[in-house]
Amino acid sequence: MSDQRTGLWLIGARGSVATTAVSGLLALRAGLAPPTGCVTARPELAEVDLPSWDDIVVGGHDVVTTSLDKRAEQLAHAGVLPHHLLPSLAEGLRAADAEIRDGYHPATHRGAQATAADRLTADLVSFRERHGLARVVVVNVSSTEPPVPHVPEHDDLALLEAALADPERAVLPPSSLAAYAALRAGCPFVDFTPSAGVALPALDRLAVDLGLPYAGRDGKTGETLLRTVLAPMFTARGLRVRSWSGTNLLGGGDGATLQDAEHAASKLESKARGLAALLGEPVTAPLHIDNVPDLGEQKTAWDHVSFEGFLGARMSLQFTWTGLDSSLAAPLVLDLARLVAAAHADGQSGALGALAFFFKDPLGHDEHRFAEQTRELHAWARGLGRYGA
Amino acid sequence: MSDQRTGLWLIGARGSVATTAVSGLLALRAGLAPPTGCVTARPELAEVDLPSWDDIVVGGHDVVTTSLDKRAEQLAHAGVLPHHLLPSLAEGLRAADAEIRDGYHPATHRGAQATAADRLTADLVSFRERHGLARVVVVNVSSTEPPVPHVPEHDDLALLEAALADPERAVLPPSSLAAYAALRAGCPFVDFTPSAGVALPALDRLAVDLGLPYAGRDGKTGETLLRTVLAPMFTARGLRVRSWSGTNLLGGGDGATLQDAEHAASKLESKARGLAALLGEPVTAPLHIDNVPDLGEQKTAWDHVSFEGFLGARMSLQFTWTGLDSSLAAPLVLDLARLVAAAHADGQSGALGALAFFFKDPLGHDEHRFAEQTRELHAWARGLGRYGA
Amino acid sequence: MSDQRTGLWLIGARGSVATTAVSGLLALRAGLAPPTGCVTARPELAEVDLPSWDDIVVGGHDVVTTSLDKRAEQLAHAGVLPHHLLPSLAEGLRAADAEIRDGYHPATHRGAQATAADRLTADLVSFRERHGLARVVVVNVSSTEPPVPHVPEHDDLALLEAALADPERAVLPPSSLAAYAALRAGCPFVDFTPSAGVALPALDRLAVDLGLPYAGRDGKTGETLLRTVLAPMFTARGLRVRSWSGTNLLGGGDGATLQDAEHAASKLESKARGLAALLGEPVTAPLHIDNVPDLGEQKTAWDHVSFEGFLGARMSLQFTWTGLDSSLAAPLVLDLARLVAAAHADGQSGALGALAFFFKDPLGHDEHRFAEQTRELHAWARGLGRYGA
Amino acid sequence: MSDQRTGLWLIGARGSVATTAVSGLLALRAGLAPPTGCVTARPELAEVDLPSWDDIVVGGHDVVTTSLDKRAEQLAHAGVLPHHLLPSLAEGLRAADAEIRDGYHPATHRGAQATAADRLTADLVSFRERHGLARVVVVNVSSTEPPVPHVPEHDDLALLEAALADPERAVLPPSSLAAYAALRAGCPFVDFTPSAGVALPALDRLAVDLGLPYAGRDGKTGETLLRTVLAPMFTARGLRVRSWSGTNLLGGGDGATLQDAEHAASKLESKARGLAALLGEPVTAPLHIDNVPDLGEQKTAWDHVSFEGFLGARMSLQFTWTGLDSSLAAPLVLDLARLVAAAHADGQSGALGALAFFFKDPLGHDEHRFAEQTRELHAWARGLGRYGA
Repeated sequence: MSDQRTGLWLIGARGSVATTAVSGLLALRAGLAPPTGCVTARPELAEVDLPSWDDIVVGGHDVVTTSLDKRAEQLAHAGVLPHHLLPSLAEGLRAADAEIRDGYHPATHRGAQATAADRLTADLVSFRERHGLARVVVVNVSSTEPPVPHVPEHDDLALLEAALADPERAVLPPSSLAAYAALRAGCPFVDFTPSAGVALPALDRLAVDLGLPYAGRDGKTGETLLRTVLAPMFTARGLRVRSWSGTNLLGGGDGATLQDAEHAASKLESKARGLAALLGEPVTAPLHIDNVPDLGEQKTAWDHVSFEGFLGARMSLQFTWTGLDSSLAAPLVLDLARLVAAAHADGQSGALGALAFFFKDPLGHDEHRFAEQTRELHAWARGLGRYGA
Repeated sequence: MSDQRTGLWLIGARGSVATTAVSGLLALRAGLAPPTGCVTARPELAEVDLPSWDDIVVGGHDVVTTSLDKRAEQLAHAGVLPHHLLPSLAEGLRAADAEIRDGYHPATHRGAQATAADRLTADLVSFRERHGLARVVVVNVSSTEPPVPHVPEHDDLALLEAALADPERAVLPPSSLAAYAALRAGCPFVDFTPSAGVALPALDRLAVDLGLPYAGRDGKTGETLLRTVLAPMFTARGLRVRSWSGTNLLGGGDGATLQDAEHAASKLESKARGLAALLGEPVTAPLHIDNVPDLGEQKTAWDHVSFEGFLGARMSLQFTWTGLDSSLAAPLVLDLARLVAAAHADGQSGALGALAFFFKDPLGHDEHRFAEQTRELHAWARGLGRYGA
Repeated sequence: MSDQRTGLWLIGARGSVATTAVSGLLALRAGLAPPTGCVTARPELAEVDLPSWDDIVVGGHDVVTTSLDKRAEQLAHAGVLPHHLLPSLAEGLRAADAEIRDGYHPATHRGAQATAADRLTADLVSFRERHGLARVVVVNVSSTEPPVPHVPEHDDLALLEAALADPERAVLPPSSLAAYAALRAGCPFVDFTPSAGVALPALDRLAVDLGLPYAGRDGKTGETLLRTVLAPMFTARGLRVRSWSGTNLLGGGDGATLQDAEHAASKLESKARGLAALLGEPVTAPLHIDNVPDLGEQKTAWDHVSFEGFLGARMSLQFTWTGLDSSLAAPLVLDLARLVAAAHADGQSGALGALAFFFKDPLGHDEHRFAEQTRELHAWARGLGRYGA
Repeated sequence: MSDQRTGLWLIGARGSVATTAVSGLLALRAGLAPPTGCVTARPELAEVDLPSWDDIVVGGHDVVTTSLDKRAEQLAHAGVLPHHLLPSLAEGLRAADAEIRDGYHPATHRGAQATAADRLTADLVSFRERHGLARVVVVNVSSTEPPVPHVPEHDDLALLEAALADPERAVLPPSSLAAYAALRAGCPFVDFTPSAGVALPALDRLAVDLGLPYAGRDGKTGETLLRTVLAPMFTARGLRVRSWSGTNLLGGGDGATLQDAEHAASKLESKARGLAALLGEPVTAPLHIDNVPDLGEQKTAWDHVSFEGFLGARMSLQFTWTGLDSSLAAPLVLDLARLVAAAHADGQSGALGALAFFFKDPLGHDEHRFAEQTRELHAWARGLGRYGA
């Protein structure tokens, strides 16, 4: 058995992104599809030693029970997965589904959060041992949570663990409890959502103490990707952006979650931080996320940029992006599993700032310009040691 | 008198771009406008020693006679120049207009092209001496010419000069005759249009022999600027562009020139070369330039990009750019005058590939990615010596 | 003196719409501009006898003091009025400005609203008599007010007048107080804004009792105009609209007013009513109005329509409208003055449903389809008697 | 057997439009889909007596041999037909396919065109008799042909028939030969393409002589539909359209056909005629049709309208239409079969101008305004007699 065998553990393992990632992994492994949208398959990273598609074993947590093969059918209907692949993937999907364990339900959990964390940790350890894996990378692709009020326990590991042991308290949101459990199991962690997750000082402390790398947060797959590409253009040319207005229409589960103003807040905050950083000055930037159920898995974003040129000349740029979010996110999830596994094998710990390329709100780095992020990713990845040597 | 005094000689000195550049230079000098759209005013280039706005003296050639102050009024009506600046600029515009000499008219010129070149050279030398200038940078901002059939004389300086002396031949298009005359006067040359200009092997030879730098070609101010920013995004993310369709609507003189299919050909060729280079493979890329006179100085470009993601998912991006071409081009013309003057002072000669940032079809470089061009520009400019020391 | 001389009294007489309307009227009268955007100048209405441009005398109320000629300069800077017309209009604008009286300030008014109404009425009567006018049409083009809580006094004229006499109460919002004062002065009233204005049962009663026509409300000048044109297309073709999402970006005073959620509410409500009526079933229809000050007088609306065709095929339409609201509204204000004057001369009273063509939220009619509204307008106007006979 | 049984004979019976129409008819008949996109299913036409879905029998001509059920699979892959319907439709598609006869191949046909016409006519008569049909409506949905040079034989029936008998000549393009054969078989004819078809004076003569109605031409399903809706809005509001620029991106067979400039010519001509008629004056109207194969069945049109308002204010509208052409066309083909059958039963002959609603280039009518066309269609249809009585 190869010593490169690597686990990918998905929080939200039966969601659209996870289902697409697992389906795609199976298709790649079977040679049924090219690695379109996979950054680690680019020629620039050809020399980097990473776990191969064959070496990746998938498991996960979820609170819903619709099986992966059923979810794949739904995604084929929605245009995310091709109908003709389904028969070839069904068996692999059922096998992956068998590795999914019940996630943490804040509404129904009784007792201290520490107990729940112990169970999640045990699931991870068992998965790793059962499959003889060199390591397991945990990736959060579950629904966005509302922003979490900051409490002192989030800043201090000892205080946090005391609170976790208190059966009367629920000091961590589910995403952070998952991160805590992953770290306790010795697993690197990736936040693909804007939820709090691992982005609490106490959890950063824990990761560093345990020598574990982590990355995040909020996968950059649409409007923000374009903004981090276009804003540097205006800046490099000395053109003054006056306003940057945006509207996002989305259906699917994400649309329903984000229509709730409280949940949307964390998404909007993370987007606004980036834009201000990119332009170097605050601009008028109204931004909306609308739930439009009939769009299904499709996400349509319209941005209108008003800018000023020489002698005050008024000009504009507008764009419409029509993307399938799960199709854009899924290959990046596979990329992150490979890269974070390699970083772990390389002995890196703490926030992996070099992975800013993947995120709207990068942890461990304040670089938002996409081209710079690309260069840094390439340089960092080429510097990684051999995997599984 | 400062030894930094530098000439900017515009071919097409009464056109929209030139008039905007001169108006803007006057406004900058008078502190009436910020240097929006000027790349050399960016903080990244703050340490580079360049001729100041006060040190630049303007002259030029043109075949039309409408004066610069009259043209400025027309451009205010078109929304390019602000009405309220006109009174403050009128005197400066009349002074600049007095430095404009009659250009080369292929239709009315009698005799050998060498005679015409001599006159153009003499105009430049006289301008440099009359104003005691350290050097004069010649920038071609005249109308786009049709593509020129290649002849052996374009490749060999001796053959070329023999042909120029032949009263029966017109071996060079006006843009190249202007470049030849500029080099003969010891002046660096910049091609801001897609015309042949200095981009002939024989003229490259001449520039290198005379120790003169040159730069070009075809200022990147709209659709192509966006393409060189967006295409690398798709590539870096491993997304496969399937088609990239474009339509450009433009009025003004440029629209009228380019509606002629022959003239448009050189513009379209230069755009297509760049797109193929950026994406690394040929894609379906229909492209149109339409003359829509009522748009005046405004240029509207619509691009539709169809791309494929993970497992063949079909997605699209479309954008509409609404720009005032002269407002975008003029500050770049001033930037190029400053940078090329500094390169000359620094002893550089031949094609300045580090200026690819400015051009659709860069001479001396095959880098089309905007972010890379930006980095190279900054690095190169920071390496220039002191100006006028 | 012609017995056709007709007053146009503008509430918000120094606002952008009013200034543009008055400037345009002066330009039309002087033969300096064609009646572009004036519906009453269309060939279809050529035979309708209406007050001529020469017969219209302008006055109004406002609470701001910046003079009309100063406002016209600002609007020229904003691209709404052409610079070259200003000198020819200045004298006429000053004359019109002299006919503007201080409006009703709810914040500073002391005493019963009846007193304020009496003053407004007196201003109108004095204007009519001073200029020997056959009639005065009052048009509200002031800023949008927040929605008004309904009280029983709004339904009953006697109760309303009792409340108006009570110095402790402010039973009517300014727009409705203006409508009340206009009716009491014997003047027809037009609501060009979404404010309550004349649209209260007690005021309808008063108008009918006094034999006065009125029209409204909320001038249809952009996104809604398009919706009332496009929605019937989908319906006539049996295509099923699934969602109709909209974003409006606007600067100017209107943007600032509408950014306040409370003010925007009346605008959004009026838009939603129309869409549901047009499509015959409720659809997902998120709609935003954003204040983007740098856009100035420009209003940019983006709409995304997702619709379903045969066998469930998914398709979409999106549009971007870039309009100058004052340029679109002003000629309609002149049209309404002419048409409502003619209706008054014709003896009509109450809500003029045939004018639904002009409004987002038509009073006296539930027809929202633009083509039907056009036919009804034409038929009604052709049926009017001779004016001023 | 009902005396309402009606044939629908499709020229190009295995093309995308025909396959979608037949699939949809089967689905409607089986109650598997609602009649979305069918105009004859609208409440406004509820009282009109038309052949029911159950009464329609399908046959046709084609020159390709891929079977209808195979084509349906391709269209499901392209997003036009829903995958889940295919199993239920397969048998019906095979039955319809058995009624398809070999079409006319100009390249391989030997001998006089009259011989070919006789064969086509015989196919129609046999179909009608075999199924005991009251009548057969022939609808041309084959690929667009290049414009046909006009010859005197097209104007005179006797000359035409003499030429048809000449084995050395091919006086009619395939679409017109099909129309001729249909009329000779006593069948009404509908031109859903821009090809010449029935629109030749000699064929009009023949139709009138034989008491047969016909309709055409060029189904209005996308950009032109929008233009006939939007242009009347500008006109009704007195706004002056200055330019109307359009770009159409299409893949599929249609894209390939129209990329050939000669074929596109008939499409572009038909579009331009309509726009000029709608606006009442010529405007700058560049229009492109680009073949973009990766778009498959999708058609994307971008239009940019520049217009002028009061006092010369410059504004714009742009829209992007993303349609599936076959999904839009197919229900109209069914509508036309029903309506033209009813017109025939009603004794009407010649061009059915009241069907202008369906066409870009209406025969027998010069009304291009969509709303007016809708009204005329409704009025005309309500005036039809009982069908099959």
